[in-house]
Amino acid sequence: MGGDRAPEIVVHGMAIAAERHPSARFLLVGDEAKLAPLLKQHKRAANACTVLHTPDAIAGDLKPTAALRMRRASMRIAIDTVAAGNAAGVVSAGNTGALMALAKIVIKTMPGIDRPAMAAIAPSVRGDVVMLDLGANVACDTRNLVEFAVMGDVFARTVLGLTAPSIGLLNVGSEELKGDDRIRAAAEVLRETHIGPQFHGFVEGHDITAGTTDVVVTDGFTGNVALKTLEGTAKLVLQLLRQAFTASTQAKLGYLLARGELDRLREVVDPRRYNGAVLLGLNGVVVKSHGGTDAQGFAHAVDVGMDMVVHRFNERIREGLGRIPAQPKRQNGQSAPGGVAGMGAKNGSAGGDDGERLAAAR
Amino acid sequence: MGGDRAPEIVVHGMAIAAERHPSARFLLVGDEAKLAPLLKQHKRAANACTVLHTPDAIAGDLKPTAALRMRRASMRIAIDTVAAGNAAGVVSAGNTGALMALAKIVIKTMPGIDRPAMAAIAPSVRGDVVMLDLGANVACDTRNLVEFAVMGDVFARTVLGLTAPSIGLLNVGSEELKGDDRIRAAAEVLRETHIGPQFHGFVEGHDITAGTTDVVVTDGFTGNVALKTLEGTAKLVLQLLRQAFTASTQAKLGYLLARGELDRLREVVDPRRYNGAVLLGLNGVVVKSHGGTDAQGFAHAVDVGMDMVVHRFNERIREGLGRIPAQPKRQNGQSAPGGVAGMGAKNGSAGGDDGERLAAAR
Repeated sequence: MGGDRAPEIVVHGMAIAAERHPSARFLLVGDEAKLAPLLKQHKRAANACTVLHTPDAIAGDLKPTAALRMRRASMRIAIDTVAAGNAAGVVSAGNTGALMALAKIVIKTMPGIDRPAMAAIAPSVRGDVVMLDLGANVACDTRNLVEFAVMGDVFARTVLGLTAPSIGLLNVGSEELKGDDRIRAAAEVLRETHIGPQFHGFVEGHDITAGTTDVVVTDGFTGNVALKTLEGTAKLVLQLLRQAFTASTQAKLGYLLARGELDRLREVVDPRRYNGAVLLGLNGVVVKSHGGTDAQGFAHAVDVGMDMVVHRFNERIREGLGRIPAQPKRQNGQSAPGGVAGMGAKNGSAGGDDGERLAAAR
Repeated sequence: MGGDRAPEIVVHGMAIAAERHPSARFLLVGDEAKLAPLLKQHKRAANACTVLHTPDAIAGDLKPTAALRMRRASMRIAIDTVAAGNAAGVVSAGNTGALMALAKIVIKTMPGIDRPAMAAIAPSVRGDVVMLDLGANVACDTRNLVEFAVMGDVFARTVLGLTAPSIGLLNVGSEELKGDDRIRAAAEVLRETHIGPQFHGFVEGHDITAGTTDVVVTDGFTGNVALKTLEGTAKLVLQLLRQAFTASTQAKLGYLLARGELDRLREVVDPRRYNGAVLLGLNGVVVKSHGGTDAQGFAHAVDVGMDMVVHRFNERIREGLGRIPAQPKRQNGQSAPGGVAGMGAKNGSAGGDDGERLAAAR
């Protein structure tokens, strides 16, 4: 029930997703009265989805603390299905803060992970680039940045199919003395980890779209601003381009001649192609779709979730995390390495039980 | 002597600047043996400039602490001329860290200013936007952000010619509860200042190029990453555009037809048009040119410096700062309001004595 045009674009998006993933089963959580007529229009979605009815939905501007109290909200029920092992993952176009809070509290972070991170794909001259964190953590310490790098490595291997992705730490300069203590310490720790050989060092804002590294690691504040600035700038240039091509008859003719190539350009920077930010470090797959996306964009977010489930993303993250040296400064004793096997078993059973089922919380 | 192709592009840039500012006189600080042959080629620059000879120059990768010890370096001598009142401002394409450190220690910050900020202009759908800080301060507190907003207001009035520029505080969401304490506190303080009516509230990364506000205020880390991401993304889209227009004969023909309009587009996002970041909050005008710019870009940086001198930018900043409420949490007692008059007199005499003279430290 979340997003600007829910549940229409979600059901339409599920029709596209059902065609792309014929063996997957989806749980569609929301108000049946609103869903039934839409499912009649989209037979493919109707065949692939089972509706879990609830009349409650979390509003886009509800505070996370208030969202946590809505136990019958569609987003909550979708997340509960993942925590209970009845779904392998959840995709939502709803309230981001609520999704993060619910995911963290109900699905819970993996042992050894301080905080989940939000990751997404951005365009570059050299192909797709993984960026994280994108806003799950406004302030991060050294250990968080190291964990993000380890999770970003697995994400790039899983979603981009790279064998040894290069990793950069976002900073205000590429020299070793730049940035604050926290970032310089993260660089030092990273050089000593199993992904040390892939660690490129510091990168700057322009390195994201230059594709200097396959993964760009940063805190949630900077990452959120950088990704939104990137999207805004692409939009600005495309808008100027549209103005240029409608400014004169001659320019309009020029557009018609170059149209095929220009459409391909637009596709490269099309935000729908990058829709689907992933919450990493949880005991389940959680994908956040843009609230303002369309059916194609929502279907892409489902693709991202399917990739992570099919490629056993979380198991690979657990392996990666097991290889980071012990935490330098442990504030509290949350970490319980003995829990790893139990968690693994739980996730394994969720995967085995339900195949590629994803819960689509709309 | 600083920048990728110094001193060639500086002398060439001064020829362009001399033509644009016929009443200005410039001090050109550097190695006379290298400057003399270049000045022969650029008669206009030769007529407008007086050479201050020094063989020493600060390398691009020298640490600021080491740069501070080079008392005969061209950048140092240029900055000394401003501190001594023999020039109204300085323009440099050299080492940014060295320029910031020297400016802060030799020219000094205004009374009441904790730290100088770096500001520049970025493109948006609705016209030019002022962004600050862009890297002078990696970490900022509430008071710094408020000071940046006050300085950004004056900068937008002076350089963009706006009467009541709108001001946004960069955050990860536009809702009041977003971001960290520091940013939320800065928003609260700003509402109470004389620029309160112009304060729009929080803006996000995409708001920069959307032109949601005329001024975007942020800490130096985020601002640096955001501006470089913006530049990188514009570059990516223009590169894709070039590829599109050379992909087929038909597309090439299309380009030829739309060329005039496309050139105008390129101009809007041309980084040279935005060259010239300004260090605000000092007792003199300090402009940092990109090290990789060309003569046109360097001349633009001189334009920015001239604008600030002619429009008595620093006096207006002092007025604005005098109107902020007393500092909420004062760490140390640097502020000495009694010094304002003396500083004003000093700067006034620099202006009166030398007219529009700028020292170009290359």
